[in-house]
Amino acid sequence: MKNCFVAQSGGPTAAINSSLAGVIDAVKASNQYDCIYGLLNGITGLFEDRYINLSEQFSTDKSIEQLKTTPAMFLGSCRFQLPSIEEDRNTYEKIFEFFREHQVAAFFYIGGNDSMDTAMKLAAYAKEIQSNIKIIGVPKTIDNDLVEIDHTPGFGSAAKYVAASMLEMAYDTAIYKLNSVTIVEIMGRDAGWLTAASALARTEFSDAPHLIYLPEVPFDKDQFLEDVKQKVVEYNNVLVAISEGIRDKDGNYISATEASVDQFGHSQLSGAGKTLERLVSRELRIKVRSVEINILQRCGGHFASRTDIEEAFLLGKNAVKYAEDGITGMMSTLTREAGDDYKVSYGYADLNQIANKVKSVPLSFINEAHNDVTKEALEYLSPLIQGEYETIFKNGLPSYTPIYRG
Amino acid sequence: MKNCFVAQSGGPTAAINSSLAGVIDAVKASNQYDCIYGLLNGITGLFEDRYINLSEQFSTDKSIEQLKTTPAMFLGSCRFQLPSIEEDRNTYEKIFEFFREHQVAAFFYIGGNDSMDTAMKLAAYAKEIQSNIKIIGVPKTIDNDLVEIDHTPGFGSAAKYVAASMLEMAYDTAIYKLNSVTIVEIMGRDAGWLTAASALARTEFSDAPHLIYLPEVPFDKDQFLEDVKQKVVEYNNVLVAISEGIRDKDGNYISATEASVDQFGHSQLSGAGKTLERLVSRELRIKVRSVEINILQRCGGHFASRTDIEEAFLLGKNAVKYAEDGITGMMSTLTREAGDDYKVSYGYADLNQIANKVKSVPLSFINEAHNDVTKEALEYLSPLIQGEYETIFKNGLPSYTPIYRG
Repeated sequence: MKNCFVAQSGGPTAAINSSLAGVIDAVKASNQYDCIYGLLNGITGLFEDRYINLSEQFSTDKSIEQLKTTPAMFLGSCRFQLPSIEEDRNTYEKIFEFFREHQVAAFFYIGGNDSMDTAMKLAAYAKEIQSNIKIIGVPKTIDNDLVEIDHTPGFGSAAKYVAASMLEMAYDTAIYKLNSVTIVEIMGRDAGWLTAASALARTEFSDAPHLIYLPEVPFDKDQFLEDVKQKVVEYNNVLVAISEGIRDKDGNYISATEASVDQFGHSQLSGAGKTLERLVSRELRIKVRSVEINILQRCGGHFASRTDIEEAFLLGKNAVKYAEDGITGMMSTLTREAGDDYKVSYGYADLNQIANKVKSVPLSFINEAHNDVTKEALEYLSPLIQGEYETIFKNGLPSYTPIYRG
Repeated sequence: MKNCFVAQSGGPTAAINSSLAGVIDAVKASNQYDCIYGLLNGITGLFEDRYINLSEQFSTDKSIEQLKTTPAMFLGSCRFQLPSIEEDRNTYEKIFEFFREHQVAAFFYIGGNDSMDTAMKLAAYAKEIQSNIKIIGVPKTIDNDLVEIDHTPGFGSAAKYVAASMLEMAYDTAIYKLNSVTIVEIMGRDAGWLTAASALARTEFSDAPHLIYLPEVPFDKDQFLEDVKQKVVEYNNVLVAISEGIRDKDGNYISATEASVDQFGHSQLSGAGKTLERLVSRELRIKVRSVEINILQRCGGHFASRTDIEEAFLLGKNAVKYAEDGITGMMSTLTREAGDDYKVSYGYADLNQIANKVKSVPLSFINEAHNDVTKEALEYLSPLIQGEYETIFKNGLPSYTPIYRG
């Protein structure tokens, strides 16, 4: 008996279940592995003996196909950081005892930076104890901030949601003949990738967003007010995309620089969007609103990018192949090939090169005035939101595979 | 030469262009009317001589079909209240001089309560001066608060957006094994229709939203905290739908009861969602976030309800027929027929019975505990979100008819 285990971790995305589907599909087709089990709530499911048999649960091709476009995590998630081996050898012993007991030949961890850190540590421990278990990471994060991969699964779908929402807001705000400013706050505390993707909303209809501010460069309030003033003259109805994580030149979050005090004297932090809304209202006296797209952008399954879902599936599928080939301590990855047409090739990269590193938006993607993205950025981003899956509706609403309730 | 004019007013919806398409389609097919023109930015376009020839612009069936599913207002909007005839006879004279000059036989005003008020006043003035011009109102509002109509165009699509977003947030929040509260603030300052529609998100997967609070009944903070506590025990991850307009028993908006003060000493109003987020955090010490769906719910064209779009089209088409039949001072309307299957019949109602009245959610739609809606509400709401249009994508994004830029 040679079993595989898989788990999911970190924040939800529209594509992470597609990677899970890829792993299940590959194990089912494997002649090396017998059964694929899923830990519930990430690695923490292991400590509580909570797992399910995925080979049984997804026995048909149709069920796997449906899982691909189901948002959020089928297996549930956790926010758990594995201590270092030196700190807590006991935990590692428990994990590998579980693996032995369940005849585990390979473990796949689908997630972002923290999950890659966990996978890296497990691979190191396996090496240390000369365990033959293969540990492979499968990437996902809407933040697109993992290194050693051209872009992360989940990002393309979130980018599509953000750009489509920006386009619909451009329609919404264009109807009145007056000056207005709409500030749209987008996720990404340290990396501005998703905020940059709002630029994809620009079509023949609209130049919105007219201004874009990323956390990779310092945010200057006075310059921002000047920018807005100018764009209002040019466009009347101005849409501004900002990352939740924009900071001033001293590194202070804009969201934190205008704390207010509630009736009990507690300091209240507003988001960056709300802070800038107040600033525009006070300084420019223009009609202004702020919109926080919030968690909707993470798992709008109905706006999944086909490119994203298909790549996520293959990254999961390939992870199993690498394990079969005897590879361990690696993350399943993809590289964009040179050339005019978008094409990626698949491979793997050392988890030691990935864990705890962050990929920021490069400066060549940001214009000189620090208030927009460049053509190079658009060329990078555009292929990632291409293609759709038909959303299945039931009783007027999107119908997804129910995620597992442990 | 007998021309028609049409205009759009109020806030954007996903269905108002479908009513415009209906009006254009009917005038093109009419043997009484020659040409249909559109005023830009509502009735204000008339004072500025800003209008376009819609018969030319939408000469093909395909262009009319595309217009049906284009969100926001093709002709732009205005927020303009026509003064009373006694107050400002001069304005009315101008309007009707414009009508004479342009050989206008009928004027159609698509909008909400304010627009119906304008149409009513114009019809009254026409009667007074014995003008033969027919004035017909065509309803739209996501708020669903017009009387003399079973439900308003635009509401069904907004309801579908709200319910689908709630469902996706139920997926999003279900992934962690911990207690959490997500408070979702939904539009509707005086009427809780859209907030009630969030209940349609309940499927075999999820009971979310677990609590629903409407502005039609007083909001009690202590009872709310009790409700949340109970639901957290039952569900762990609790989703709460609240209307932006919820008020306490003295009529004070919840959004206004916890004003905070910024660094300049200015009072800062938060939304009701943010206010309750702080309350839950302070009193219950549970992980809590608030999400404001905001303007996205108004014109998410990709989530348009087919029922809504088709009804909106017929309401526009019928308006022209009524004018041809010599009817004036009426609003095009629909009535739900009795019986188990959803069916509506079309007709018209006197604008005097409609303008300046508000249809609230009836108490029979709200449960006794004032924290949910009843089965009767669900039966009323469910048919309105049924059916879809295939979203046309171009370059990864929904492709809509560009709205007119005057």
